Amino acid sequence: MISRRGLIAGGAVTAAGVLGPHRSERQVIRLASTEVTPFHGTHQAGVATPPQAHAVFLGFDLLPRTRKEAIVRLLQLLTDDAARLTQGRPALADTEPELAATPGGLTCTFGFGPGLFAAAGVDSPVAALPAFKTDRLDKRWSGGDLLVQVCADDSVSVAHAVRMIVKDTRSFARVRWTQRGFHSPTRRNLMGQIEGTGNATDLDKAVWIGQGPLRGGTTMVLRRIRMKLETWDAADRVAREFTIGRRLSDGAPLTGAAERDAPDYARKNALGFPVISEFAHIRRAHVADPALRLLRRPYNYDEGLSAEGESDSGLLFACFQADVGKQFVPVQRMLAEGDLLNEWISAIGSAVFAIPPGCAPGGWIGETLLS
Amino acid sequence: MISRRGLIAGGAVTAAGVLGPHRSERQVIRLASTEVTPFHGTHQAGVATPPQAHAVFLGFDLLPRTRKEAIVRLLQLLTDDAARLTQGRPALADTEPELAATPGGLTCTFGFGPGLFAAAGVDSPVAALPAFKTDRLDKRWSGGDLLVQVCADDSVSVAHAVRMIVKDTRSFARVRWTQRGFHSPTRRNLMGQIEGTGNATDLDKAVWIGQGPLRGGTTMVLRRIRMKLETWDAADRVAREFTIGRRLSDGAPLTGAAERDAPDYARKNALGFPVISEFAHIRRAHVADPALRLLRRPYNYDEGLSAEGESDSGLLFACFQADVGKQFVPVQRMLAEGDLLNEWISAIGSAVFAIPPGCAPGGWIGETLLS
Ligand code: HEM
Ligand code: HEM
Repeated sequence: MISRRGLIAGGAVTAAGVLGPHRSERQVIRLASTEVTPFHGTHQAGVATPPQAHAVFLGFDLLPRTRKEAIVRLLQLLTDDAARLTQGRPALADTEPELAATPGGLTCTFGFGPGLFAAAGVDSPVAALPAFKTDRLDKRWSGGDLLVQVCADDSVSVAHAVRMIVKDTRSFARVRWTQRGFHSPTRRNLMGQIEGTGNATDLDKAVWIGQGPLRGGTTMVLRRIRMKLETWDAADRVAREFTIGRRLSDGAPLTGAAERDAPDYARKNALGFPVISEFAHIRRAHVADPALRLLRRPYNYDEGLSAEGESDSGLLFACFQADVGKQFVPVQRMLAEGDLLNEWISAIGSAVFAIPPGCAPGGWIGETLLS
Repeated sequence: MISRRGLIAGGAVTAAGVLGPHRSERQVIRLASTEVTPFHGTHQAGVATPPQAHAVFLGFDLLPRTRKEAIVRLLQLLTDDAARLTQGRPALADTEPELAATPGGLTCTFGFGPGLFAAAGVDSPVAALPAFKTDRLDKRWSGGDLLVQVCADDSVSVAHAVRMIVKDTRSFARVRWTQRGFHSPTRRNLMGQIEGTGNATDLDKAVWIGQGPLRGGTTMVLRRIRMKLETWDAADRVAREFTIGRRLSDGAPLTGAAERDAPDYARKNALGFPVISEFAHIRRAHVADPALRLLRRPYNYDEGLSAEGESDSGLLFACFQADVGKQFVPVQRMLAEGDLLNEWISAIGSAVFAIPPGCAPGGWIGETLLS
């Protein structure tokens, strides 16, 4: 057992209470300060990187009459910022260089919306999503020309990187939305479920694009999905597990014993009904071909109580896939048509971005698309 | 060196990038999931407890005509919630019992404002603060009859505890404000400074009250202090270090070599001026008597950009002291009168609470004050 007291660096509080015995369930350690995630490489970081504790998704709109040349300049600037900050070095003209020294696994991931390609005069590899009947989209959380996903295990590192990025973007674009999320090492969301089990694992097929200017890149769909926790609370455990098709306690499928057991979609109960309902979330969302699965990388959001006293929380559902039309859209359509979960969730924001490949030292994010 | 990959529990992402070499500066580990901080005891947890990564401060106003009997019922309910949740057990009628299993060092700390005592018909040991000329207070972030400070290293644990507490408070009180904060293991704030160095260490004298109904308890002042980061950015390193009286790099006093070196307030430079300015923050705030020092336990806040494009961030400055009038007020007065830092900060919220002592199993928080 590692004592927490010994781990908190040099705090002046010496009379802290002695810690009780630790419970035995899954225990996760985060290296919060000086950890570094490589920036340069074939792929951008922040996609296959295990989710860090904190995320800020920044959506920018380019200023009117921002053309290719300016966009390239902006991307060179932001690439330089990200290359430095993620490696624990201050940005050029960093306003708080001390905060750069402890990146806490910082990643800065860039995405281009259709509007960026239009402004640059380049054909867009992504388009806005079709409408789904369960959508309740608010413009405030939708669209955007440029995405920067900033994640780290250290909240101050995220805040600092966001500041540097917003500052350097100021002459080219304005912030359209800021979405803040958090991820627990338990992988539980605010409905209590464990997430990530059925994620894509063959990333070379399902996520990374194999050819063309986006080779080594991918696409991201970001949906802000509000949870109606008040009515979810009224559902009992049986209903909740039936809705997803997995157990709340350990994430095992209703037909299995452990989280990683493959769900048995054919199994019937004594009455002849499928144990995992036809309308259970995991069945509706499941795709047999591993090359067509999604890599979900969602964060929780919680903005406290709305003016009406309702909880304003849910999921910043981010997912990556090689092809939006072949992977995301069919799954979202299946869900919109008959997912039991729809009773308690609705998408209130939506955006799609091309995620360019990574770059080598001296290169910049987007060079294969815009140069 | 501990590999992060091995530590993130069972994530499905297997193709994550390999981590680069770690830098050598202060490295901090957080046990984010199943760690338990004791609830019962002489003192409430969350005061001397080293700051966890996440905090939510909830300020409640009692509903009209809520009298002593109802307040006692509410406190018994909330004590029971806190006693369970902090120990990794679901609250009674917990809506998401799965989220209770991983408290992540959760603490729930209760405070009573003057309005709670008035409603209960009991003399209040605390009163609103006097006005300070640097105050720019907004009602939205000030006052409150009941405070609950919820802190943990796991953000989902905080969100869940907040939800349970708000739910159980609903028939007695309404949320007046919610303030979210975060703390980095580097102890740096958003101005880049290391905090906590000059904190009270003799807590039995400076923090815990020795007699009367608040024996074993303390008082808390909570100030929402906005930082004008835009103009702070315009100050150079020399000016920034002169303002505080400590170095940004390592927090050492301008007269010393290491963070823990005692500042030498008498030392003069070649021109005969004090090395640590008469108006430096640490000199203005310093109190010679260790029994009169404050135990500061601040969190950063960052709400992104305001409508005007300015950063809306700063400090949720929480401090604990046995006596507000003898400890907090004189320091705040010294600062209001001549702290160089005033150029870049202003208090936009303010509240004062009596922090009752802890309780034994079967007891409830507030019993020495209200029964
Ligand atoms: C608030 C909204 C949502 C919640 C709470 C939620 C929750 C879950 C949970 C608990 C699982 C089972 C564990 C896992 O594999 O991660 C799951 C699986 C899955 N979800 Fe969702 N989900 C949401 C929205 C979506 C959306 C919008 C999509 C895509 C359009 C989606 C696609 C999937 C897929 C593909 C799986 C894996 C299915 C399989 O096992 O093959 N989910 N989700
Ligand atoms: C945004 C607002 C503030 C910032 C950024 C800030 C920052 C700092 C820093 C960097 C230090 C030196 C390291 C340390 O001892 O923690 C310090 C010390 C201190 N501050 Fe502040 N502070 C703020 C507001 C306040 C307020 C409102 C008070 C009390 C009214 C206060 C009281 C103190 C005290 C007592 C010390 C220790 C002085 C000593 O060494 O004896 N600070 N603060």
